[in-house]
Amino acid sequence: MIEDKMIVTPWEVRGKIDYEKLIKDFGLGLIDEKLYKRLEKYMKNNFFLRRKIFFAHRDLDFILNEYEKGNKFYLYNGRGPSGHTHIGHLISFIFAKQLQDAFNVKYLIQLTDDEKFLFKENLSLEDVEKFTYENALDIIALGFNPEKTKIISDLKYAKTMYREALKVAKKLTFSTVKAVFGFTSDTNVGSIFFTSMQSVPAFIESVKQKKNVPCLIPHAIDQDPHFRVSRDVLPKLGFFKPASIQCKFLPGLGKGGKMSASEPDTAIFTTDNPKDIERKVMNAFTGGKDTIEEQRKLGGDPDICPVHQYFYFFFEEDDEKLKKLYNDCKKGKILCGECKKELANRIKKFLAEHQKKREIAKKVIDKFMLED
Amino acid sequence: MIEDKMIVTPWEVRGKIDYEKLIKDFGLGLIDEKLYKRLEKYMKNNFFLRRKIFFAHRDLDFILNEYEKGNKFYLYNGRGPSGHTHIGHLISFIFAKQLQDAFNVKYLIQLTDDEKFLFKENLSLEDVEKFTYENALDIIALGFNPEKTKIISDLKYAKTMYREALKVAKKLTFSTVKAVFGFTSDTNVGSIFFTSMQSVPAFIESVKQKKNVPCLIPHAIDQDPHFRVSRDVLPKLGFFKPASIQCKFLPGLGKGGKMSASEPDTAIFTTDNPKDIERKVMNAFTGGKDTIEEQRKLGGDPDICPVHQYFYFFFEEDDEKLKKLYNDCKKGKILCGECKKELANRIKKFLAEHQKKREIAKKVIDKFMLED
Repeated sequence: MIEDKMIVTPWEVRGKIDYEKLIKDFGLGLIDEKLYKRLEKYMKNNFFLRRKIFFAHRDLDFILNEYEKGNKFYLYNGRGPSGHTHIGHLISFIFAKQLQDAFNVKYLIQLTDDEKFLFKENLSLEDVEKFTYENALDIIALGFNPEKTKIISDLKYAKTMYREALKVAKKLTFSTVKAVFGFTSDTNVGSIFFTSMQSVPAFIESVKQKKNVPCLIPHAIDQDPHFRVSRDVLPKLGFFKPASIQCKFLPGLGKGGKMSASEPDTAIFTTDNPKDIERKVMNAFTGGKDTIEEQRKLGGDPDICPVHQYFYFFFEEDDEKLKKLYNDCKKGKILCGECKKELANRIKKFLAEHQKKREIAKKVIDKFMLED
Repeated sequence: MIEDKMIVTPWEVRGKIDYEKLIKDFGLGLIDEKLYKRLEKYMKNNFFLRRKIFFAHRDLDFILNEYEKGNKFYLYNGRGPSGHTHIGHLISFIFAKQLQDAFNVKYLIQLTDDEKFLFKENLSLEDVEKFTYENALDIIALGFNPEKTKIISDLKYAKTMYREALKVAKKLTFSTVKAVFGFTSDTNVGSIFFTSMQSVPAFIESVKQKKNVPCLIPHAIDQDPHFRVSRDVLPKLGFFKPASIQCKFLPGLGKGGKMSASEPDTAIFTTDNPKDIERKVMNAFTGGKDTIEEQRKLGGDPDICPVHQYFYFFFEEDDEKLKKLYNDCKKGKILCGECKKELANRIKKFLAEHQKKREIAKKVIDKFMLED
């Protein structure tokens, strides 16, 4: 049975995602034709924008207005290091790099090891520190320049972070975090405090530069509640509200696009070897029919197929070729086995390259990490 | 009107203090004859113990048992740097020094600048940092050895402190801190988290020494709720429950022993000049009668007199002389003016010396401060 009830919080994404409803529920703006055109001046024919993978925003027009007045923004996003990075996690980092290159701006990446320790019963501090290291390698492997790009581990940079987080925490009551995150009396006091730490990178450049610097956060839509809190509190501290640009989720390989930490075969991790990749992709749920005959006759359904979504989100850059793949599937001209094999090959090629860059990243990681 | 309703929390002490009730409410043990005798082996005729100024405890027998088995404890206490140190604040530090000298143990002093920022609406981070510095000078002026004595500012040592506090925070729910501290939905999330930071020095020596080291906390009784939390959580992390020894409050110079931050003349600060001291003491509330005639005839009431309490707590070490002062007051043989003048002189003498040592402390403060 496909679980249909949609749940989207910073700690859980479940069910069939209704992006229109999320935009309405969260109060986001859609990246419309006009805004898309404005962005195109800087990012011609950008893959993630043209595919509407990054599709929603807050105050992106403000960011562009300030930029055009000569007031540069900086970029900020991050990830919770509770495990290895999977391909879906890379999307926000790759898009941030494209923004960074297009606008030539500074970029801060926060690895919230404290959060993952607090929210995951079974993770120790040593576990999250290991994943902070591993996740940082994945980010660095994407080709960032350490002069303009810094990675924050909340634990390693806690002296700076805690001091700034206190300013946020003083303005934030339990009722607010209870309403935003659905906390209860049984929530631990660290988790209650944590969003204060997640707010810090959204204004720390302003603290360092001693002037108000706009901040743009490219992120997956589930993290929006944290930044709603930041947008509420930061003006009370004299800073701009952070702007943001939201992306959709790369679905998992399980039935109904399910991706689950308890079922590691539903996600492709950057550390997977060719055998893992092959197995995971070949076992993926698809939109195909039960038999070859049926598929040839009735065609498949690419709209519900995670394999097709992997091409859409990541592995088929050519729009024409993607369209042909979509139509061929619908017409039964291509079988799931062929499609999966092609995807497995592309992922293997991508990750072989990525894993080489991860090795090189080990030698330069110190240049990226902010440490007290 | 004297406010009679007793309120004793880490952030507010008000009304007439009923120590017997506090012991019962907080579940403390009394330092009885047997325990006093045991302590006397190490601290002969100790002023604060014999006057029952330090009067209650938790697990002090455990501390002595371990010590006698060769397992040394360490000392920990501290202060919230929301203003200058007053004479009452010195008591716990002086007694800790006597314990340190008697048992030859390590001593950690925590200045909770983060707490004071979070709980005091009007204090900025710069304010609490200034008072951290000023308060540290008062502590160092008491003559500690920097090899065995370290001062923690939560802000300056946040990298170490935050990491350890997370372990406590993960085991502590909002319901618990709500029940212990009386927090509400309107409490800010930093204040909710804070007690986790106050727990850290009670086990950090165990972390550093990689073995379970007993901890003894000499403190004023209002701070007990924090250490009740520590005692609840630390065993869950594999550490001993911290032991403690509690003292009474030096009363303020206002009516009914009132000491109030909004009325700085009700306390003697270590930075006061001779004129301030003179004015404050001479204007103090006393147990005296309205006229000299009445006083001569009926005598004064030293039991309700803060001036007498200053002699009792601090400025008359000789028990016989104190007794004489008490009796002379009751019999009307000494007038309040004379008594106040004597106290003012003793305070002036003490603080002149203390202020000289504070100046010297400025040169060595770096040897005492733990910093990341």
